[in-house]
Amino acid sequence: MIVVLHRSAASEDVAAVADRVAALGMMAHVINGTERTVVAATGSEDEAHRETLASMAQVESVMPILAPYKVASLEAKPEPTQVVTGSLTIGGGVCGVIAGPCSVESEEQIMTSARAVKAAGATALRGGAFKPRTSPYAFQGMKEEGLKLLAAARDETGLAIVTEVMTPTDVELVGDYADVLQIGARNMQNYRLLEACGESPAAVLLKRGMSSTMDEFLLAAEYVLSRGNERVMLCERGVRTFESHTRFTLPLATVPYLHARTHLPIVIDPSHGTGVASLVPPMMNAAIACGADGLIVEVHPDPPNAASDGPQSLTPDAFAKAMIACGKVADAVGLTMDTTNV
Amino acid sequence: MIVVLHRSAASEDVAAVADRVAALGMMAHVINGTERTVVAATGSEDEAHRETLASMAQVESVMPILAPYKVASLEAKPEPTQVVTGSLTIGGGVCGVIAGPCSVESEEQIMTSARAVKAAGATALRGGAFKPRTSPYAFQGMKEEGLKLLAAARDETGLAIVTEVMTPTDVELVGDYADVLQIGARNMQNYRLLEACGESPAAVLLKRGMSSTMDEFLLAAEYVLSRGNERVMLCERGVRTFESHTRFTLPLATVPYLHARTHLPIVIDPSHGTGVASLVPPMMNAAIACGADGLIVEVHPDPPNAASDGPQSLTPDAFAKAMIACGKVADAVGLTMDTTNV
Amino acid sequence: MIVVLHRSAASEDVAAVADRVAALGMMAHVINGTERTVVAATGSEDEAHRETLASMAQVESVMPILAPYKVASLEAKPEPTQVVTGSLTIGGGVCGVIAGPCSVESEEQIMTSARAVKAAGATALRGGAFKPRTSPYAFQGMKEEGLKLLAAARDETGLAIVTEVMTPTDVELVGDYADVLQIGARNMQNYRLLEACGESPAAVLLKRGMSSTMDEFLLAAEYVLSRGNERVMLCERGVRTFESHTRFTLPLATVPYLHARTHLPIVIDPSHGTGVASLVPPMMNAAIACGADGLIVEVHPDPPNAASDGPQSLTPDAFAKAMIACGKVADAVGLTMDTTNV
Amino acid sequence: MIVVLHRSAASEDVAAVADRVAALGMMAHVINGTERTVVAATGSEDEAHRETLASMAQVESVMPILAPYKVASLEAKPEPTQVVTGSLTIGGGVCGVIAGPCSVESEEQIMTSARAVKAAGATALRGGAFKPRTSPYAFQGMKEEGLKLLAAARDETGLAIVTEVMTPTDVELVGDYADVLQIGARNMQNYRLLEACGESPAAVLLKRGMSSTMDEFLLAAEYVLSRGNERVMLCERGVRTFESHTRFTLPLATVPYLHARTHLPIVIDPSHGTGVASLVPPMMNAAIACGADGLIVEVHPDPPNAASDGPQSLTPDAFAKAMIACGKVADAVGLTMDTTNV
Repeated sequence: MIVVLHRSAASEDVAAVADRVAALGMMAHVINGTERTVVAATGSEDEAHRETLASMAQVESVMPILAPYKVASLEAKPEPTQVVTGSLTIGGGVCGVIAGPCSVESEEQIMTSARAVKAAGATALRGGAFKPRTSPYAFQGMKEEGLKLLAAARDETGLAIVTEVMTPTDVELVGDYADVLQIGARNMQNYRLLEACGESPAAVLLKRGMSSTMDEFLLAAEYVLSRGNERVMLCERGVRTFESHTRFTLPLATVPYLHARTHLPIVIDPSHGTGVASLVPPMMNAAIACGADGLIVEVHPDPPNAASDGPQSLTPDAFAKAMIACGKVADAVGLTMDTTNV
Repeated sequence: MIVVLHRSAASEDVAAVADRVAALGMMAHVINGTERTVVAATGSEDEAHRETLASMAQVESVMPILAPYKVASLEAKPEPTQVVTGSLTIGGGVCGVIAGPCSVESEEQIMTSARAVKAAGATALRGGAFKPRTSPYAFQGMKEEGLKLLAAARDETGLAIVTEVMTPTDVELVGDYADVLQIGARNMQNYRLLEACGESPAAVLLKRGMSSTMDEFLLAAEYVLSRGNERVMLCERGVRTFESHTRFTLPLATVPYLHARTHLPIVIDPSHGTGVASLVPPMMNAAIACGADGLIVEVHPDPPNAASDGPQSLTPDAFAKAMIACGKVADAVGLTMDTTNV
Repeated sequence: MIVVLHRSAASEDVAAVADRVAALGMMAHVINGTERTVVAATGSEDEAHRETLASMAQVESVMPILAPYKVASLEAKPEPTQVVTGSLTIGGGVCGVIAGPCSVESEEQIMTSARAVKAAGATALRGGAFKPRTSPYAFQGMKEEGLKLLAAARDETGLAIVTEVMTPTDVELVGDYADVLQIGARNMQNYRLLEACGESPAAVLLKRGMSSTMDEFLLAAEYVLSRGNERVMLCERGVRTFESHTRFTLPLATVPYLHARTHLPIVIDPSHGTGVASLVPPMMNAAIACGADGLIVEVHPDPPNAASDGPQSLTPDAFAKAMIACGKVADAVGLTMDTTNV
Repeated sequence: MIVVLHRSAASEDVAAVADRVAALGMMAHVINGTERTVVAATGSEDEAHRETLASMAQVESVMPILAPYKVASLEAKPEPTQVVTGSLTIGGGVCGVIAGPCSVESEEQIMTSARAVKAAGATALRGGAFKPRTSPYAFQGMKEEGLKLLAAARDETGLAIVTEVMTPTDVELVGDYADVLQIGARNMQNYRLLEACGESPAAVLLKRGMSSTMDEFLLAAEYVLSRGNERVMLCERGVRTFESHTRFTLPLATVPYLHARTHLPIVIDPSHGTGVASLVPPMMNAAIACGADGLIVEVHPDPPNAASDGPQSLTPDAFAKAMIACGKVADAVGLTMDTTNV
């Protein structure tokens, strides 16, 4: 890390910083510039050391050099990770699509959804049984009953099941029914939950927090990875900005940015990323075009009667049409769109 | 709520919307403007109804009229709530100050901190035993051992204890030691945790998520309140914006805004709100000047040796000086600063 | 517009609001809900009326219903506008590409750039002669000398010229040399400049301000359009958010969102939108995939020696390769990529 | 500046970077860490050099060390600048208040306003004659007629006049009537305007752009200062964030942050900073409490009939009451509130 001293720092201040750097187990390199002195500290970098140095009176700022994540980094594993679980394959040049309703509402609703998304080429079914809702008065999901319906849908269609888990004590239960544990954006830094998912045999779809930085996102993945679960998919679902014409702002540059830093596959959620059904198909195309490893899309047989997220849900017809378009884009960019392995 | 139809909506579309409004148990009022038709729906408003209407093909947008929170609203309880727990009183014209280190690190550290913040006029001690850390490799807190040290500090000083709880299964344990359960910004929408705190006899300090809206903040409080725990304090700790010169951006207008909508007391955290120790005292003054009901401030006997948050921690001396300044500002704006009830 | 009264509003308050609505030339429709009264005001909506009503003591908020822009709206002109100027065609199903260096630096540099981007399929040349620079000490552009070099490049290659104009008094001069006047993001609300460009015979490329809303963006276009210049292209170049891993955050949902509201063509600038050369080609693909009408891309023969924006400039080779990829994506989504009309 | 090389950089890459650093006139210090090599470049730092190095193939990132502004810095002038013009004194421990309507609307309106704000203790009158409006169809100000009315108000009351100038060719005209040229937030990076104001004998109130960083803000001031105009006041008027309950988010930490970096006085605009009249008085208190050198407040004799900004305008009575409160806060923090020098 680089320690920048105040302009007014005297030589004894520089010495004090250099001593502290050494005491922290790093090597200090003092560089006297024309206006400022900086001390470059080499060796292992950690956040606590950064804070220690930044708290010293004559230090103006401390800039880290190394990425704080380890297992998630390309440096730890240069080849892309491909997550395979049941019918779903994502990563390593294969793009898989997860689709289905926001919430599981009834047997008929989830079965209809499952058949429709499978027919259109999705290889996994999404559906919420435990729902994180902004209001305590809103529908909170069918809970275990919903998980059973999802499992029934898998039995019939063969589709892998992706569903959210909200709290550590539910990880085992949800893992009994699901192929992929979804960690929602609001729980991206729920560390006990990350750890519990890190100890589950199920794969994990980790959604980016709505104002999380890339380092925070990768460190959240690191919580899961460091407990031994290697099947982690990162999901960009949009960030919160001043823009109000869309529900969130979907920054697709996340895809190539992360591909240059991590081996984990990147899934795009254009449904939450826009919040508006008509904007979802063009964003599906765009996600594929910049190299996304997967999509997760909300599809509901009857959006106006959806228990949640109707305005951003595609009808089965619209989804089928969008999938055909995505297939063409995938071909154009040399990505294998996996629609056939169920 | 107000349903705005697309310009191209025909009379049968208007009728369909009006019928749906009625089917949802609301009364429809059709208003034909010169360019658009809107349908005003009166009666109970809920998010699911908004989504249902927004999902209809001829609907352009739906605007809610009523606030979605109930128990937290001034309409439910016009008089300000004063939270009293042990030595701490916050709200209802009384401003209390919570201070202490980011993390509990040792008996000596927490005892020194407790004595110092008490001497300066704080009426509660903060200190983290369970620490939510961005990196899995960072110090995660002393856990129950830390809680015991906090309790010992209360025994000696009489200061109420404020400490974070991160997961529902720890609520009982933390509640056994603490007077106030702190729910961190990253857990503001950890609904199972909110519910568990709602069932605890301890008071709750709920921190605003770093990109949460005011409605989301009050609905998170509503999760706690609706489970029966009435002693909720709201804490503004800064939001994430494009600004990088401070760790977060501290929007003090939150104080008067919330005072006009909720009876719950508002506490300001200038330490996380700025991330820089030298900016903390002026922001303490500013918070008091606009009517904050409380402050929560990081104070550490030796910031460069703090296990976490050193750069934003005040020394005991700086804190004592800042408290004197705050007392004068409180007098100027007619707020009672409570520094004497330990 | 919809006027929401405070909960405490009495019947005389409602009458006062209704009277004021009528005095402003609109028709008032009073709707008594169970908790609130709202007054729907139909007729012409303008911002001044909204503010007048919002300033009344018993009014809580006023929500506009109608879009504030007129000439730019699809309602005013349902068919897409195609801007044609010299070799450049953008809009109406045709995607054109503008490319070249950030700044004009020398005859050799601009000629080399022009030949390279033409060879790769661009149909217009960009290059700044008047440069808006954050620091007064930075290179401010070659000014008229730069314009002459651009004109010389057009003479040789036939490429239309796109270059920035920074102040109203330069509009005529820049218009003498350029085919398209670029209005930079920092000048999106420089109203005297917008008006001056509205009176120029040259086409206009209007860049979105880095924190402008969609309504503000379209109203800026409206300033140009309302002065009689119909050849306006809107350019999304990224917005400022908390994200720091890219220079700006590029929200591609702008493309389909604007296509549903305006007839003006939408151009994407992935160079400023990311600030990192390696992220530009995937974002070019993504922009085409979601239906962009054009791209503007920074290309420099020798990025490390560029006078400005080297880190986000593609080399000619990288650009040529990216253009081939874009052509395939355009085919996949049924867009005509215009690379042949020079 | 600090140049961080890619992990894969070989010794010849390091040499190439070091050579380039030397060729740019800086001295290169190579530091080999355990995982990365960095090259510290000492000597004069400029943005062009940063970009050159950042564009090199083996360079991952370049971090500047020195602040890019010069004349505005505390290092150039350690003592605070006090701007004195006519009746207005701001800075150097003296807090002055500028107040008045958003727009000049009529002789009666501006005279009534001037008398009222003077009576309450303001020492300068604000009022817009040239109005930057989001919509081309909105009231654009009374222009020179408005300037004459402002001058008449000064003649009667003795109050210094603060009014906006929007374009370089108007600087002389506005300067003939005004004591202080206001540069609006939307023009903070209108460089030709900054330069023209830098050559005016009038003082300048420079508003921060709604998403400008601190460095950009100070560099905009530097444009004015570097042309010889030393009487520059910086005005924080709120930034654009995801928050929609206020018009902008007002980050008061700007005050102490800037005081630690620049000698220029800092003025707070709580009217635009919140957009809501009821939030203005508490934010006035808060601004004073954290050390603001001045306030600029919108006051209108009849807000619902204001031509612009009614919802955020205080009535004369509310302003008078707020000024009394501010005076007490100023006393509490040891700031001299100047209300008597007219």
